Amino acid sequence: MAIMRMGYAHVRVTDLAEARQHYTQTLGLNEVAADGNKVYFKGWDEWDHHSVVLEEGGVGLVKFGFKAQYEDDLADIEKKAQAFGATTERISKGEELEVGEILRIHTPSNHIFDVYHEMTSGQVDVGNVNPEAFPRDLRGVGAPALDHALITAEDAGLMERFLHECFGYWTAEKVATSLDPADQHTIAVWMTATTQIHQLAVLEGPQSKLHHFAFRLEEGWEVNRAADLFAMDDVPIDVGPTRHGITRGKTVYFFDPAGNRNEVFAGGYLSFPDRPMVTWTPDVLGKAIFYHARELNERFTTVLT
Amino acid sequence: MAIMRMGYAHVRVTDLAEARQHYTQTLGLNEVAADGNKVYFKGWDEWDHHSVVLEEGGVGLVKFGFKAQYEDDLADIEKKAQAFGATTERISKGEELEVGEILRIHTPSNHIFDVYHEMTSGQVDVGNVNPEAFPRDLRGVGAPALDHALITAEDAGLMERFLHECFGYWTAEKVATSLDPADQHTIAVWMTATTQIHQLAVLEGPQSKLHHFAFRLEEGWEVNRAADLFAMDDVPIDVGPTRHGITRGKTVYFFDPAGNRNEVFAGGYLSFPDRPMVTWTPDVLGKAIFYHARELNERFTTVLT
Amino acid sequence: MAIMRMGYAHVRVTDLAEARQHYTQTLGLNEVAADGNKVYFKGWDEWDHHSVVLEEGGVGLVKFGFKAQYEDDLADIEKKAQAFGATTERISKGEELEVGEILRIHTPSNHIFDVYHEMTSGQVDVGNVNPEAFPRDLRGVGAPALDHALITAEDAGLMERFLHECFGYWTAEKVATSLDPADQHTIAVWMTATTQIHQLAVLEGPQSKLHHFAFRLEEGWEVNRAADLFAMDDVPIDVGPTRHGITRGKTVYFFDPAGNRNEVFAGGYLSFPDRPMVTWTPDVLGKAIFYHARELNERFTTVLT
Amino acid sequence: MAIMRMGYAHVRVTDLAEARQHYTQTLGLNEVAADGNKVYFKGWDEWDHHSVVLEEGGVGLVKFGFKAQYEDDLADIEKKAQAFGATTERISKGEELEVGEILRIHTPSNHIFDVYHEMTSGQVDVGNVNPEAFPRDLRGVGAPALDHALITAEDAGLMERFLHECFGYWTAEKVATSLDPADQHTIAVWMTATTQIHQLAVLEGPQSKLHHFAFRLEEGWEVNRAADLFAMDDVPIDVGPTRHGITRGKTVYFFDPAGNRNEVFAGGYLSFPDRPMVTWTPDVLGKAIFYHARELNERFTTVLT
Repeated sequence: MAIMRMGYAHVRVTDLAEARQHYTQTLGLNEVAADGNKVYFKGWDEWDHHSVVLEEGGVGLVKFGFKAQYEDDLADIEKKAQAFGATTERISKGEELEVGEILRIHTPSNHIFDVYHEMTSGQVDVGNVNPEAFPRDLRGVGAPALDHALITAEDAGLMERFLHECFGYWTAEKVATSLDPADQHTIAVWMTATTQIHQLAVLEGPQSKLHHFAFRLEEGWEVNRAADLFAMDDVPIDVGPTRHGITRGKTVYFFDPAGNRNEVFAGGYLSFPDRPMVTWTPDVLGKAIFYHARELNERFTTVLT
Repeated sequence: MAIMRMGYAHVRVTDLAEARQHYTQTLGLNEVAADGNKVYFKGWDEWDHHSVVLEEGGVGLVKFGFKAQYEDDLADIEKKAQAFGATTERISKGEELEVGEILRIHTPSNHIFDVYHEMTSGQVDVGNVNPEAFPRDLRGVGAPALDHALITAEDAGLMERFLHECFGYWTAEKVATSLDPADQHTIAVWMTATTQIHQLAVLEGPQSKLHHFAFRLEEGWEVNRAADLFAMDDVPIDVGPTRHGITRGKTVYFFDPAGNRNEVFAGGYLSFPDRPMVTWTPDVLGKAIFYHARELNERFTTVLT
Repeated sequence: MAIMRMGYAHVRVTDLAEARQHYTQTLGLNEVAADGNKVYFKGWDEWDHHSVVLEEGGVGLVKFGFKAQYEDDLADIEKKAQAFGATTERISKGEELEVGEILRIHTPSNHIFDVYHEMTSGQVDVGNVNPEAFPRDLRGVGAPALDHALITAEDAGLMERFLHECFGYWTAEKVATSLDPADQHTIAVWMTATTQIHQLAVLEGPQSKLHHFAFRLEEGWEVNRAADLFAMDDVPIDVGPTRHGITRGKTVYFFDPAGNRNEVFAGGYLSFPDRPMVTWTPDVLGKAIFYHARELNERFTTVLT
Repeated sequence: MAIMRMGYAHVRVTDLAEARQHYTQTLGLNEVAADGNKVYFKGWDEWDHHSVVLEEGGVGLVKFGFKAQYEDDLADIEKKAQAFGATTERISKGEELEVGEILRIHTPSNHIFDVYHEMTSGQVDVGNVNPEAFPRDLRGVGAPALDHALITAEDAGLMERFLHECFGYWTAEKVATSLDPADQHTIAVWMTATTQIHQLAVLEGPQSKLHHFAFRLEEGWEVNRAADLFAMDDVPIDVGPTRHGITRGKTVYFFDPAGNRNEVFAGGYLSFPDRPMVTWTPDVLGKAIFYHARELNERFTTVLT
């Protein structure tokens, strides 16, 4: 395992006060640091310093962090990324708050992926000695952790190869124009490096855009309860609660106050490198994405940040 | 990842007809082959030929299969196991039905672990093209897949080192006599090689014994519904439905007609190699195992097969 | 209690074969009788002969049956209905299959309500002696029972008075143009005669129309699972799974093959005659009906049968 | 409907401070009044002044309140109770805090049942105008309301007749020595006056004792989550989470700090006066009470307060 997981999402928000309210009171993240125009958050079940960075000014993705298992992974991924044709930089330890040395990759999709091995330790809220099953008093949705993201790229198939070659990701599920691998155009891919069903998904679309980033919940009732809380807190819901055909996960899509799309996601089967990839054809795309409604709303495909 | 997962459990049962009824009609596995005194089963969400082998005659564990990601992993694990002092054998392709060449390891705990890279493909029941979220008509509990097992060993700490060095497993959770790693005796370990919270657990106890092997379910209501079906089908329940403190999973322990302990298990948080290990102290062992009752029943610690 | 419950729904369907498939295989009702162009069904947890009658030819409501607790209730309700200005008839025992003498009321909303005290006994599938918690092998959604219906009427307030005076129903929840009872126009009412949160709801709209009739499920996961099965069985979903603000129930609206709207409904709080009525104002009508999306789709308000 | 519901439970506790902590912080009731050595509580979804009264000094039941629908019900029930041979008293309005005139009945089981029609209004926490589905910030289990109780009596069959004749209750389920009504001894009865599956149950045992009183939850996951919170708050669990065969409800039994047994209860099917009574035979009593374990623990049958 070179990349263990998507370690953090760094996005812009128009108003930090509103965003703080949303991410801490509705989603239930802990604010762990503030630094100039940036605020840092972690979920109660995360052990690194932060998993979400909000930066005041505008809307949309700044970058994602990906945590590598070994220090040597940075050099290895650097070599592979450069061989793939991507531009890379090195960022010294400490330039990003509480993050060690960074390999910054400008991806073929024109996103910034920061690969790091070191981050200051945080603490799972329940601790590591005789822990309770969850914190006694969660706030709002009580999201335990960042889970995955979906970005858009002009060439989703190119990004699939990039993530496979440089990050060691495999494709759990794919939407393609044909079932014949030799004659198919890739519309979207769901990729991972572990049994977690996806860590990063890429959908054909404009370069450098964010579709959503997602927080993990454990069960379907928690997803439904999250939707109840969004109703109470006037959080705009995009779609859900419903199930995805792809990944089988339970989901609600919603927007933060700046308009960045968030998701709460639960379930999904376990992925393994030897599990045959699932392929979806464009004629059932609606059902693939929203298993119950079996159709996409226009907002889902057009609102990106 | 050297070992991807526990690929199959091979156990003895006193009566194959009764066992077939239990594993297919109550648990909902598919029977995929029969061969002399052995019957082979898979869950609906598994893509290899089988994950459970039942052999008529007696009760208890014959062996576990572990699937390695790469062909070369066998030689590599062989070298490490021998260096650790374990006895190994090679079993030719085909000697185990539908399994490729096997590295058979006689573990320090006196269990047999068969490491293989190749098994004849099965088919996830919903297929790999535009699949439904689950089979329309599941039988009984409808268990999708084998998940993990718990074995006993005279020296649980030794097995922990063995699994770490040879299989690349890390310890997600541990019961130990002290919180000081330098001065602790290991009573039990829960180990994995992926985000799946455990693939194999080892509890201090007699050599070569099986405590239970477990099937995965997705949500708590499915665990509760399984308990309902066990009541209807006269399946003896050992404990549950309840939650484990360790792993946070939801669980029911029950017995197959021969007396082998099974489990249905759902949930549990995601494990990662950099996640700090959780340690439990013996004074809260009851709560660690059964979070609600906070005490062990005698059967739980004494009935092994 | 004069009226105990809505005892049956009698609707038209364009094609009996398709409808049978939907109501027995997808919803899981039992077919209990067929008679000319009519087919009769009951849920597994119902003890009267039938709760659904399908009649071939067209689409839409024929009538509802309401079961009275005592034989004398028919004469009593007859007197009250006539005093209210409604037309009534008496139908002899046996003219409706397995139903005793009927008081037929032509309601102010121009619907037909058949009040009866006697129906041939059916049998709860699990029996009445040492029963299991549910049938071991349910088909599809496995709906246990008919629950309630929503009809439209030109004057919803008039129907509210009619149901209160003749049936002894009280209003659990109401949508009204103002919070002042002395100066409000009633847009919709949810009424009941027991702790069941509603047995009949009336929405301002055209006379004699059916909005939907609903089947009861026990928990939210069953509602979500129903939506999964509708996806598998190509049943068109109107809205859901979601929650209602009104009644707090969990819901999926869907259509039978003829186009009659059905619902699966779970939860809702307990109603009591002394519980203060809940009032909703038109500005939050979307949230009142669909708590998560907080807006009505056009289909929901325009498709009636 | 003469009696609408069990309106309040009044019990003794050894330590008011501990009890307050349990009932408000763990169960999530609201404290609404304190008066000398008594404290009054209500659930968030109740509209009367209180549903639980705790009185310092000892342990066990003081009395239950039952709310009648009409003022005239008191005289009517009084006449019936006296005809049945029970002793009755009248208690003036105001002698019980916030309760109107009371008909106090000394039941054949030597319990005190206070029948009242009037209680000062409380307020459902979410209000009656455009309410949210539940309070945004519940404490602990967040129990919405008192649900039912189980008492013991030397002659359970006598209490069944008493409750039927005086309160209008019917028997939803029964444990009896035989299936022949003409030749059976009644061991226990579950009785109600509405679709709520039971309001009061009576088990053969010592006079004047309390087995438990129960709070309503809506779904199984809430019952399981309650058990998690009991583990965190060191609340002793008697049994559960599990399902009852009787009523089909999901349950956890636990003890308040004084030793009174509480229950959280969810689900259960709807009762109706024409629904055939369910009878259980003593040979399956374990399964009738605890559907999964299929055996009673000794504590369950011997600990009464």
